[in-house]
This record gives sequence, structure tokens and C-alpha cells, in this order.
Amino acid sequence: MENTDLIPLQYALDTFYFVICGALVMWMAAGFAMLEAGLVRAKNTTEILTKNVTLYAVACVMYMLVGYHIMYSSPEGGFLPSLGFLIGDEHAVEVVAAGGADAPYYSARADFFFQVVFVATAMSIVSGAVAERMKLWAFLAFAVVMTGFIYPVQGFWKWGSGFLNEAGFLDFAGSGVVHLCGASAALAGVLLLGARRGKYGANGQINAIPGANLPLASLGTFILWLGWFGFNGGSQLKMSTIEDANAVASAFLNTNMAAAGGLLAALVCARLLFGKADLTMALNGALAGLVAITAEPVAPSILAATLIGAVGGVLAVAGVVTLDKLKIDDPVGAISVHGLAGIWGLLAVPLSNGDATFAAQLLGIVCIFAWVFGASLVVWGILKVVIGLRVDAEEEYTGVDIAECGMEAYPEFTRKA
Amino acid sequence: MENTDLIPLQYALDTFYFVICGALVMWMAAGFAMLEAGLVRAKNTTEILTKNVTLYAVACVMYMLVGYHIMYSSPEGGFLPSLGFLIGDEHAVEVVAAGGADAPYYSARADFFFQVVFVATAMSIVSGAVAERMKLWAFLAFAVVMTGFIYPVQGFWKWGSGFLNEAGFLDFAGSGVVHLCGASAALAGVLLLGARRGKYGANGQINAIPGANLPLASLGTFILWLGWFGFNGGSQLKMSTIEDANAVASAFLNTNMAAAGGLLAALVCARLLFGKADLTMALNGALAGLVAITAEPVAPSILAATLIGAVGGVLAVAGVVTLDKLKIDDPVGAISVHGLAGIWGLLAVPLSNGDATFAAQLLGIVCIFAWVFGASLVVWGILKVVIGLRVDAEEEYTGVDIAECGMEAYPEFTRKA
Amino acid sequence: MENTDLIPLQYALDTFYFVICGALVMWMAAGFAMLEAGLVRAKNTTEILTKNVTLYAVACVMYMLVGYHIMYSSPEGGFLPSLGFLIGDEHAVEVVAAGGADAPYYSARADFFFQVVFVATAMSIVSGAVAERMKLWAFLAFAVVMTGFIYPVQGFWKWGSGFLNEAGFLDFAGSGVVHLCGASAALAGVLLLGARRGKYGANGQINAIPGANLPLASLGTFILWLGWFGFNGGSQLKMSTIEDANAVASAFLNTNMAAAGGLLAALVCARLLFGKADLTMALNGALAGLVAITAEPVAPSILAATLIGAVGGVLAVAGVVTLDKLKIDDPVGAISVHGLAGIWGLLAVPLSNGDATFAAQLLGIVCIFAWVFGASLVVWGILKVVIGLRVDAEEEYTGVDIAECGMEAYPEFTRKA
Repeated sequence: MENTDLIPLQYALDTFYFVICGALVMWMAAGFAMLEAGLVRAKNTTEILTKNVTLYAVACVMYMLVGYHIMYSSPEGGFLPSLGFLIGDEHAVEVVAAGGADAPYYSARADFFFQVVFVATAMSIVSGAVAERMKLWAFLAFAVVMTGFIYPVQGFWKWGSGFLNEAGFLDFAGSGVVHLCGASAALAGVLLLGARRGKYGANGQINAIPGANLPLASLGTFILWLGWFGFNGGSQLKMSTIEDANAVASAFLNTNMAAAGGLLAALVCARLLFGKADLTMALNGALAGLVAITAEPVAPSILAATLIGAVGGVLAVAGVVTLDKLKIDDPVGAISVHGLAGIWGLLAVPLSNGDATFAAQLLGIVCIFAWVFGASLVVWGILKVVIGLRVDAEEEYTGVDIAECGMEAYPEFTRKA
Repeated sequence: MENTDLIPLQYALDTFYFVICGALVMWMAAGFAMLEAGLVRAKNTTEILTKNVTLYAVACVMYMLVGYHIMYSSPEGGFLPSLGFLIGDEHAVEVVAAGGADAPYYSARADFFFQVVFVATAMSIVSGAVAERMKLWAFLAFAVVMTGFIYPVQGFWKWGSGFLNEAGFLDFAGSGVVHLCGASAALAGVLLLGARRGKYGANGQINAIPGANLPLASLGTFILWLGWFGFNGGSQLKMSTIEDANAVASAFLNTNMAAAGGLLAALVCARLLFGKADLTMALNGALAGLVAITAEPVAPSILAATLIGAVGGVLAVAGVVTLDKLKIDDPVGAISVHGLAGIWGLLAVPLSNGDATFAAQLLGIVCIFAWVFGASLVVWGILKVVIGLRVDAEEEYTGVDIAECGMEAYPEFTRKA
Repeated sequence: MENTDLIPLQYALDTFYFVICGALVMWMAAGFAMLEAGLVRAKNTTEILTKNVTLYAVACVMYMLVGYHIMYSSPEGGFLPSLGFLIGDEHAVEVVAAGGADAPYYSARADFFFQVVFVATAMSIVSGAVAERMKLWAFLAFAVVMTGFIYPVQGFWKWGSGFLNEAGFLDFAGSGVVHLCGASAALAGVLLLGARRGKYGANGQINAIPGANLPLASLGTFILWLGWFGFNGGSQLKMSTIEDANAVASAFLNTNMAAAGGLLAALVCARLLFGKADLTMALNGALAGLVAITAEPVAPSILAATLIGAVGGVLAVAGVVTLDKLKIDDPVGAISVHGLAGIWGLLAVPLSNGDATFAAQLLGIVCIFAWVFGASLVVWGILKVVIGLRVDAEEEYTGVDIAECGMEAYPEFTRKA
């Protein structure tokens, strides 16, 4: 018996690990949908659900058609990915199988499956920030470009062995490539879109617009928390050695602890600031903790992971308060949670991982933000001119559900239907 | 060291893979419950939840007592399964362990666990179609016969090595054995039961009866989407070789792509037909895509899988519209989603799998439909005579929740309680 | 090639199995949150959600800081654990890695991850029983002591190789250590807290206080059912041999069957007692079945497991009715489901496992109850004196959501906001 007799079992275990982690990340799409549906008003719920389920499908199709090719088919690295209007399909997944020096250690299709659910995550971040006033079809048009082109280009820079990877930028599971990316696109959209009517008063007051269904928002947070085990745990990409197994276990545990730390820190912050145990802040704190640990979930001790998450939670609260002062209206806090905590997570990598440098981390942050924010601004801008970004005032008043989807989410519940 | 030293690890990996996939399929019971609870009116919600949780338990018990024996204990194949009123228990699971030429490659109990959750899935399809007017206990009585007898007989024909299997009928994970089966039983029930009062007007108009809680319906769809990875991915039955691992990864990926294709196709169809982005059609489109790919999720390319799903999505929309024209009232669209898309999925197998023939696929469709529809018609008919299928008019008007369960689902929310 | 070449793969498989089971148990936190949020009134929903998400985070942090050390760092056994105010972190997880005679067969961090989610489960049981009238911060203060001290001490007695383990007390996955523990703490709290205003009338009548959202309660039950596969299946702690794999498969299957048995038994009981198909009783029956099988999910036959669950379901119904007669107000039935069914499950172990004795099981029940109930009574008592346990009458009337969290859960839905 040769040692190579073990290869099929290793391959099978690594593939199983990969598809299960992918399934957990897919589940995050449900988490974003529930979170956002819980935090908007009842009259805009059907539409945010429609956006969330549809953007997931758009991400899958666009990434299959062009995105995966852009992100992974330029082994020479550098700044410009290989474009080519290739309809990816089997070709794309064989890229991984080819694999050069390393024999593939899992199914190439498992790799595509794991990668594609990350694209959808980035796009899900956007939908929350532009909720309650953006046109459905403008949003979906943006999703096509974002998931097929904008995301894959910066993904190539890091995970496709492009110039950021060569520069030593470290981002284990995507605090930058996924979360900062999503938040940057969201910020561009929000700036061009403007705030919801009634959010900011003439005399500078900020009006709270409470979400319609907090159990749903809590459920969404729990779903994201669970899915994040796949997000971070799966990003080790391999399981079948003791070292890899230890890394995966560390990623699961640290992910959990960072969320716990973020939740508690945000809850205490909100208690000090507002005098109440603010559930939505606690939920956003947990999510910010998760975002923060995503850049490096393996190396920190569990205590350090808890503290990294806690700082993320504080930043989420501070970000939500600050953006409101700047009259940047983000109904679900996505820009703070995914952008601020994402940047923090990237900057925290050198604290626990000796291979990281602040310079490289800063370079990555600047490049990802500049590219995604800039490209998104252009795309949102074109859409604004061509089809318009914003529903008209009456549709916003009566709710985008009827205007865009023709049906209410809760036709029997709301006091005035 | 002998090569046989690997057997325990293979066995362990295959067993783990099997129970995790089984757990994912069990989770689909929650998906059906949420989907159906979201698509009925508030006044009928407690009852549909009660039906869904109870049918799952009934399926588990009946399949243990008699169903598994019927389905898998007749190794000689053919048309008639071995009946015998055996209280299955350990005997049943040892049938698999005996295993003949092939050594068992996973725990026999893992096999039973995986099989039993499929029975519940078939039965869950029925509950949605007969919602809002069928008596609870009549439904549960049908569930006893369906899960203990009707399903296992046709399951034996294919997966128990019966005559359909011998004829070359291919159905990887159950577009026919599970989904068409459930839809056929549902159709028989709906025909004997009649439409909900008020659904079809005297002058031929069709009245929309909107679901009470669309976030719940969306959540249900996401749950089903996630669970389907276990449904299709687990149906390879084995993971521990490179070939099997590749097949499982392909099943996960194609399942995902078919759902995405179905969702987008149904959304676009509905937009063209009704002028709006119809969320419920999009959800049903995703489910139809999932049903369609279930007959053969391994062989197609990912582009082909997306297209197979897309056709399923179009069929779901067409089916819902057509059934309404025929005044066949299916509140959640289950017959279209599971029946039409199931048939399409079975007919699409020869497009990607050279071992399949249209003749054998047609034979399977006809036999499954004829048996399940016929047997169900007899059972529903007997129940109609003996205890009645339908709640009385006043109970239907005030809602079956109070009549059957004695409690409202949302006692504080609805405008008139 | 040596046989030791297999160790990395075994280690990897066992670690993967362990973190996936841990993730499933973490998911139970979402289940408790949804279950409890569905069973309270709308005006108390935000607060119960806040309690549930926060207690999970508190459990993670406290168990990291002191709990895990108490539970597992006294290898000499006995009655008193090693206390020491150690800030556990890496030290704690290395305890397992040290491991003595047995080489560690999975990542020490995977062990911590799996253990910590159990602590949260025990604490989640408490939150339901004290719902709708307990102060949020008093509850969280109790959570700190419970998860950092009370739970770990009795956990040490059994799973940390303490005196109960030495006495032959068997509790595979925690019918006692987790569920009876949680129920005992809950009972102490409820006794000091008193019933909700309006629950028990002056003339002895018992007023039903219906839950606001039964789909949520059903979803919570399904989530718990799914998570329980990890709870019981993971408690084998190891997967990579044929014997272990069989045990894990048996645990998955028996867990499922016990839930089914409990659900059906409770549904039939409730039908006989109240004349209706009581959904909340059916859900509690399923949970009681799950609790009952937890003490020994491997050894019973699947028929025996179904019956063990069924008895649990009957006990849950009987317990809910009896506690109401005693004017012990438990809004979600947690004491009956986790306490009564937990005791039954422990007593049922000798029926299927020849290593168990009734004497040892009784000893375990008495010790766990006495310690947890007694210690909790002291802690609740101190909290009652120092900061008070109960919100004031007006806050209880208007709802604790506004009083404690400053926001409603469903601001647009309820008839009087």
C-alpha cells in the first residue's frame, strides 16, 4: 500500500468540507434577506425580499458567465485580469483542476460553489443600505455589473493572485474583498440616491424609522452567525491534515467569540449612549464582530478574537451614529457594519499574524475602496441617468411593495394597508 | 498495513456525509411549513403549521413501522413488493446491512434516517395544495396511508430495485419518486375537495387570495434551497472516492444553479405577464428549478443545469396560471412546482445522461402518476365518505385555526381577529 | 507506510465532525429565541429576543473566562472542582490537548467550541420560563453566574470526571447536565418572581395568555430539532471508527424518532384533554421527546426511542397542566419540557443501557437538581434584594419592550401600539 492510497479519502473529505461550508455561506443569503426584511417598514418588505432572492440568483449566473473567469483565470497575476467574453461554464471550473504544481485537493466544482456564494454575500450588503427608496430594476442592473465585473476584478487582485496578493495584503476570508467591497458599493449608491423622505428633518433632527419585524431581524442575525462558520471556516480551503484541521477549528471558534464580543460591546455602548438595551445595535454589533474577525480568524487567541470582535461592535455603533449625523441614510447600518468593521479587521491582522504589515493592509484597503467605490459610482451614475435610481415620491410614501411587486408583505396585519 | 485499514475511515466519512445530508433534508420540513404558513391567510396559519409538523412525525413513524420494509425488503424486484405487517424497527435497517455482494459502506441507521426524511418531503407537498379548507384529521389519516403505503410502493419500483428500475427509468434524487408522487396525491385531493370559497367568481373571474406573511414564504424557500443540497447531494449515497466526491460536488453546484435559473426565469415571465416583479412567482420558480434538476443533478454542465432550472421556472408560472383557468385551486402552487417541473426534470435526463431513454422516463412518469393519483383518489374518496374532507362553510369563513386548533396564529395582529 | 499515516485523516474527520455538530448546537440558540419570541405577547418580544441573543454571548465569554476551567481542569475528580480565577483562554483548551494516555483525536479548540454552545443551551431554557416580567439586567446578571459557575460545577461532576461520573451516573448528551440544570435554575427564578399579572384569577381560574406569533414558535421548534442532531450526535465526541460512526448514526436517528414520538403523543393527549389539535402542545411534545432521548440516544432501538420520546411528550402536557394548577407560571412550558422530560430521560437509561443503574441515575438527578436549584435560589435571591427581579406593574402592563429596550418588536402590526 502506497501513501497515495490516502489521496481519494483526503480528496473526499476536503470536498465534503468545502461543499458543506459553501452551503452554510449560501444560507447567509437567507440571513441578509431576513435581517433586511425585519429592519425596513412593512410597506417595503416584499420588495427587499424580492431584491435579496433575485440578487442571489443574479450573482450565481453572472459569476458563472464571466465573474469566475475574471477572478481566477489570470495566473500571471498583476493588475489587469484576463477579460475575454468567455461563457465560463466547465472551462472556468477546470482552471482550478489544472492547478499547476499542486494536485487539486478537492473537486473543482466544489471550489466554484464555494466562491459563488461569496459574490452573493457582497451584493447582499448593498441591498440593505439602499432599501426603501431604490427602484428594483435599477438595483438588479447594478447587481449584474457588480457580481459579474466589479467584485471579480478586486477578487482577482487578492485571491486570484493579483498585485495585492503579491504586495503581501492579507485577507483570509474577505473583510476587504467581500465586506468592504460590498460596503463601498453601497456607499456610492446611497450618496447618489439620497436619504429616505422624512429621515432627516429640516432643522437637523434625525427621525428614527423603526423596523417592522424585530424577530425577523434577530433570526437573520442568527442565520448569518451560523453561515459565517462556513464563510471563515471554509476559507482555509482544506481540512485533511492536522494543521488544516486545527486552523479550521480555530476559525470556527474565533468566529463565534468575535460575534459574542461584538454583541456585548455594542449592547453596552448603546446602553451608555441611549439608556436602553437596543436590540438592533446588539445585532449589528454581533455582525460587526463577525466582519472584523474575517480578515484573520485563525491566528488570534480566543480572548484576542473576542476583543477584536468587541472593537468591531463599538465601531458599528459609532458608525451608525456618525453616518446619521452626516445625513448618509443607511436603513440597516450595512456601511458601518461591513465597511468600518471590515477596515478594522484588516488593520488588526498584523496584531496576531507576523506575516502581515500595516502598509500592505492599508494598500489593500485603499485599492479595494477606490476601485469599488469609483466603479460603482460610475455604474450607479449611468443608471441614474438612463432609468433613474429612485422611485417617485408617491411610490415611496405608499411603499415600494405595491409599486414594484404588486403585493403587500403583510396584507392583513398593518394598521393602514 | 492492508488497504482494508482504510475501510473504517471510509465508512465513517460516508456515514457522516449521510447523516448530515439527512439532517439537511429534515430541515426541508421546516421549509415547507414556513412556505405554506406564509402563503395562506392569517386565519388558517395555525392549522397549516399543525399539519406540517404532524405529518413529519407521522411519516417517521409509519415509515418505521411498515414503509421502509415495503420499499427495500424485496430484493427480487418486480411489481409487487413484499408486504407483511412487519413492525420494522431493527429488522428493517438490517436489510441494508446484509447488503449482498457489496459490503455496506455506511451505517444502516444512517440509511434509514436519510430515507425517512424523503417520505416526509413527499407528504409536505400535499399539505400546501389542500390548505385553507381541508379537515385536519382527514389530512392526517391520508398521511398515514400515503407515508406507510402509497409512497413506499412506488419507491420500491424505482429505488427498491423494482420494475421501473429494471426498465431503465432514471430518477437520481426523486423528481418522480418524491415530487411527482407528492403532486399526484395533492391533485387527487384537490379535485375531490374543490376550490376555496371565493376563489373563483360566478362570472369566471379568478380572485387573488394573497398570503399573509411573505417574509415567512421567502424564508421557507431559502430553507428548502439549503435542504435541497442534502436532498440531491446525499442521493449519491457515498462520498469516499474521488468519483463520488466529484459527483456530490456537482450535485451541490447544479442544484444551486438550477434554483437560480428557475428564479430568474419565473421572475421575468411574471414581469412580462403581470407587469410586476411577483415575489411569490420568483419563489415558486426557484423551487421548480430545484425540482427539475433533482432527476439528474450530477451529469449536466452548470450552464445546462441553469437552463434546466429555468425551464422549470417557466413551467411553474405557466402551471399556476393554467390550473387557475381550470379552477383547480392550489393555494401555494404545489402541483405546478412539484408535478409539472418534476415531469420536465425526468424528461430532461436523457439530454445529459446517455444511459437514459425517453421511453423509460415516460414509463416511469405514467406509472408513478397512475399509481399515486389512483390510490390517492381511492383513499381521499373513502375519507370523504367516512369523515368528510372539508370543513363546513362557517369554519372556512372564520378560519380553520379556531375550528381545528382552538388558537389563532397571530392573535394580536390581524385587523379583525 | 505505517498505520499512523491514518492519524491526520482521522484527526481531520473527527475535528470536522465536531465543529459541524457544534455549529448545529449554536443554531439551537436561534431556536430558543424564535420559540420564546413566538410564545410571548407582542409587547414583550423585543426584550425576549434581546435576552436570548445576549445570554448566548454572555455564555461564550464567561465559559471562556472561568467556566471551561472549572468544568474540565480537575482531572483528580471528586466533588470540588479546581477553582482559581484563571482567565482561561488558550490554557483552557490546552487542558484537553494534554490528554494523558489518549492522544487527542480532535482539535482542542473544536472541543471548546462544542462545549461552549451547550452552556448557552442550558441558559436559554431559563429565559423562556421567566419571560414577560423579569428585568433584563437582573436576568443577564444571573446568566453571568449560571454560565460561569453554576453550570460548570455540575458539568464537572459528570463530564469533567467528577463524583457523579465515578458513581456510574450516565448522561450521554445532557438530559441532566444541560436540560434538568436549565429547568432547575428556571424553577428557582419563577418561584421568586411570581406569576405574570392576570395569569391566575382571584377565584382560581387560569387565564390563557396566547403567544403572539405561532409560525415563529414552530420555526423555533424545527430549528431546535435540527440543532439537536448536533447536540446528541456530536456527544459521541468521535466519528472515525466503524463503532463510533454507528453510534453517531444511531444518535441522529433516535433523536429524530423521539421527537416524532413526543409530538404525536402530546398532540393526541391535548386532543383528548382539550378537544382541539393544540399546536403549542405538539411543539412542546416534540421538544420533550428530544430532551428525553438525550440521556441515551445511542443504545435504544428506533421503536424504543420513539416510545421514550412519546412518554416525554405526555409528561410535557401533564407538566404544563400541573404547574398551572400550582400557579407556577412558565409562559413557554420550559420547566415541564426540560425538567420533567429530562428526569424521565435519565431514568429511562437503564432500560436500554446495561451499564446504567436506577440508583446512580437517581443520585445524579438529586444532586443536579439540589445544586442548581439551591445555588440559583441564592443568586436570584441576592439579585432580588439588590436590584430587584421584576419590572414594575405599569411596565408589565405596557410591555417590557418599551421599558427595557426602548423599541417595539412589531411597531406597525399590533392593534393598540
